[in-house]
Amino acid sequence: MSNPHPTYDALFALNTRLHHFGHLQAMAWWDQACNMPSKGQDARAAALAEIAALMHRMRTDPQLPQQFERAEQEPLDDAQRANLREMKREWQRDNALPEALVQAKTLATSRCEHAWRSQRPANDWHGFLENFRPVLRIAREEAALLAAQSGLRPYDALMDRYEPGMTSETVERVFGDIKQWLPGLITRVTERQSRERVVEAQGPFPKVAQRALSLELMALLRFDFDAGRLDESAHPFSGGVPEDVRLTTRYGEDDFVQSLMGTIHETGHARYEQNLPRELLGQPVAQARSMAIHESQSLSFEMQLARSRGFVELVAPLLRKHFGAQPAFEADNLHRLLTRVEPGFIRVDADEVTYPAHVILRFEMERALIEGDIEAEDIPALWDEKMLALLDVDTRGDYRNGCMQDVHWPEALFGYFPCYTLGAMYAAQWFATLRRGTPDLDARIRQGDLAPVFDWLRDNIWLQGSRWTTDELARRASGEPLNPAHFKAHLESRYLG
Amino acid sequence: MSNPHPTYDALFALNTRLHHFGHLQAMAWWDQACNMPSKGQDARAAALAEIAALMHRMRTDPQLPQQFERAEQEPLDDAQRANLREMKREWQRDNALPEALVQAKTLATSRCEHAWRSQRPANDWHGFLENFRPVLRIAREEAALLAAQSGLRPYDALMDRYEPGMTSETVERVFGDIKQWLPGLITRVTERQSRERVVEAQGPFPKVAQRALSLELMALLRFDFDAGRLDESAHPFSGGVPEDVRLTTRYGEDDFVQSLMGTIHETGHARYEQNLPRELLGQPVAQARSMAIHESQSLSFEMQLARSRGFVELVAPLLRKHFGAQPAFEADNLHRLLTRVEPGFIRVDADEVTYPAHVILRFEMERALIEGDIEAEDIPALWDEKMLALLDVDTRGDYRNGCMQDVHWPEALFGYFPCYTLGAMYAAQWFATLRRGTPDLDARIRQGDLAPVFDWLRDNIWLQGSRWTTDELARRASGEPLNPAHFKAHLESRYLG
Repeated sequence: MSNPHPTYDALFALNTRLHHFGHLQAMAWWDQACNMPSKGQDARAAALAEIAALMHRMRTDPQLPQQFERAEQEPLDDAQRANLREMKREWQRDNALPEALVQAKTLATSRCEHAWRSQRPANDWHGFLENFRPVLRIAREEAALLAAQSGLRPYDALMDRYEPGMTSETVERVFGDIKQWLPGLITRVTERQSRERVVEAQGPFPKVAQRALSLELMALLRFDFDAGRLDESAHPFSGGVPEDVRLTTRYGEDDFVQSLMGTIHETGHARYEQNLPRELLGQPVAQARSMAIHESQSLSFEMQLARSRGFVELVAPLLRKHFGAQPAFEADNLHRLLTRVEPGFIRVDADEVTYPAHVILRFEMERALIEGDIEAEDIPALWDEKMLALLDVDTRGDYRNGCMQDVHWPEALFGYFPCYTLGAMYAAQWFATLRRGTPDLDARIRQGDLAPVFDWLRDNIWLQGSRWTTDELARRASGEPLNPAHFKAHLESRYLG
Repeated sequence: MSNPHPTYDALFALNTRLHHFGHLQAMAWWDQACNMPSKGQDARAAALAEIAALMHRMRTDPQLPQQFERAEQEPLDDAQRANLREMKREWQRDNALPEALVQAKTLATSRCEHAWRSQRPANDWHGFLENFRPVLRIAREEAALLAAQSGLRPYDALMDRYEPGMTSETVERVFGDIKQWLPGLITRVTERQSRERVVEAQGPFPKVAQRALSLELMALLRFDFDAGRLDESAHPFSGGVPEDVRLTTRYGEDDFVQSLMGTIHETGHARYEQNLPRELLGQPVAQARSMAIHESQSLSFEMQLARSRGFVELVAPLLRKHFGAQPAFEADNLHRLLTRVEPGFIRVDADEVTYPAHVILRFEMERALIEGDIEAEDIPALWDEKMLALLDVDTRGDYRNGCMQDVHWPEALFGYFPCYTLGAMYAAQWFATLRRGTPDLDARIRQGDLAPVFDWLRDNIWLQGSRWTTDELARRASGEPLNPAHFKAHLESRYLG
């Protein structure tokens, strides 16, 4: 019997090779963040640039346009069609970029990110600026090329890499809505909380105890330790590959909440990856749907689940076990501690009420950077201005806790930030759906029965991979596309209810 | 001005690309041994097979023969000639192997090595045998192809990958000589030592203290921690790349000597790598000369330097610092402990007097395996027989501490073992030369002045890279090619002097 889809199969084989090279890339990135000593940097950057260039050449093979055309005529099943659609999407994206640009980008971002790791603690904005200028220049070039190819605006073309189908028009509308009610909500919540008595936790919280607690929580959240691990890095992330997910966290001995919640957040990402359809791993259809959907998983874990009153009942005894008993670890108090709203400097440490302000600031600034309305030099002053306006926080001169706090810009991840708040909105939407289907959800969580949460996420999100567009995935999971009203309702219920 | 050597430059560029891919390979191997969870295995094996196949295709490009011919006619300087010679050597080796074999080998060895890590502690010979049979079959195929191409015997063709120019005829002659005098020497030394009083060290020796001691010793030995790191793995090795050397060790809480000496051994390998000519890194001429020369560095550190009476004076206070004072750590006693000769099961734990017996056994067995004189099934019985004959040790039924102890065979590193004892002989030859040039060497070591050792090794070995053949390197460094008499003289002087 002759093969009915030889061209599809050839494209599939190409994708498999790319998947294998991507594995080595992912592990080298993880190693760079967790293990690599300083003098290894240049050799690593060169090696990563080389494989990026190779993968780019494979993805831009001039035969591909005809192959896509031929494959589309072949008899394919639904999964094969979805694979083909995702391969073509990636091909269109990569074909906009010449190999020299890909290589220059890898070099510039590797250098900038590596230097940032020591420049940030040194508050060295001017040193950082030197390395960041070429990153921005390359990102603009990339945006222009992607825009020319897709017909999108330059910033939208970058965002499309993370959140296919999303436009800055939509983001602006949704974020504009948030800007209407968020300042008022923050004021009401902080006023209300100022009348509550909260006992602070007394440190120090030894690193080894924090790590043991992190591991125990990951186990409670069903992280598969035979398919991943937990390490430390300056900026926590979830990397590696679905078969071997590499989470990172960071421990500050005076604060256990950062690593506790950071680990829970990354575990949400990890469980999505670990539960993508295993028999299809390596195929585009088995990839996570988008970055907003990815963040909706980390935030389902960190915000929806872990900060719920019921889950705090599970965390309290673990804190007493690893750090010793103290009044702050009594469940009511702990819940108040974990849901305290306070405008601050650092996005990753922000509570879920003020977090959108951090994202709105970054969205507005990076869109202006990419579209040439501002320059790299303008970042600090504009940052100060917006932090003051949005959160009433004074960041002047404090680059470390201001515009140098995130790894995204050094790594040229422009267009990513909106996904955090889109993810928070999706997470609220998932839990609203979950509660409709499981009215006793909170009681079950309190009893340690997390199965309803994991089962729903697995069936509706994780196992769906990239089978559907984001809109269609949301519709199938929750009956409607993105609806920000669930997020507002969630905040009002938890913080003013 | 036109480029006088365009073809050489094209070959050079190809080599640079291979060097970059080799970086990713090296890091993935290190990660596999140190970090990777069990379910990551299949994806890792597939990724490593993919890049091995790619590199193999690059190395077997059909245009290469003409390019080598043309480049040889171009005007080149000495370093360029040496580069060309080494590239051609690698090309000849790789060209003997079809891509499918390279890929099958990577898969088979990854699987066998990974399973071995749990099968060895479980003493599971039969489980191991399942995975090892395909490894042996592929290694024989490889040996036959390499032999056909080079005109060498199959085993010699494998050995040539690690020790270019060495033949089993030479090894057999040298090892035959050792077999003449070694049993008598072992008897005399053990008799003499049985009359000495040695105080045993009292454990346990906590892992964290052993690690701290290892790091302090590495610093004393001038390991550059900005260009490498120390981790743990089941089988210690020195991996990574010259710019970022990854050492591993293992800690047993009842025995500090294993990690102490293992770390010193791997640090010898590491300093060689860290001090290869930096401005030429990535070029073949900047690579370590051969595996015997590599082992001559680890053994210069572990055997010649670290077990000398003077160096033990430096180690003794460090042991008291990290483990607390005890009679065993008095320098005279410690030196007796560290130079104790005792036939045992484990090669990596063997003293330098009995060590050659372990190597001779492996050399004789692996040559027979490759040349088809014995089968994988025959290994345990033959192992038992030879251990009894050479060291009077009974290994029956104890596969874990017998034929399953080494990672070399699961990884198809046939032909490597002789390099250890060749390296021990070279190390003795280097120190004989060093002592002629620096008559007060031992007094200076005792005072902590290790510069004469490092300076000599750096100038005569490390910075020479692969500029010369092994014979020429030895001649330039010590005035003569390999001369096993230095090794015999060293053992007699240290153990019977």
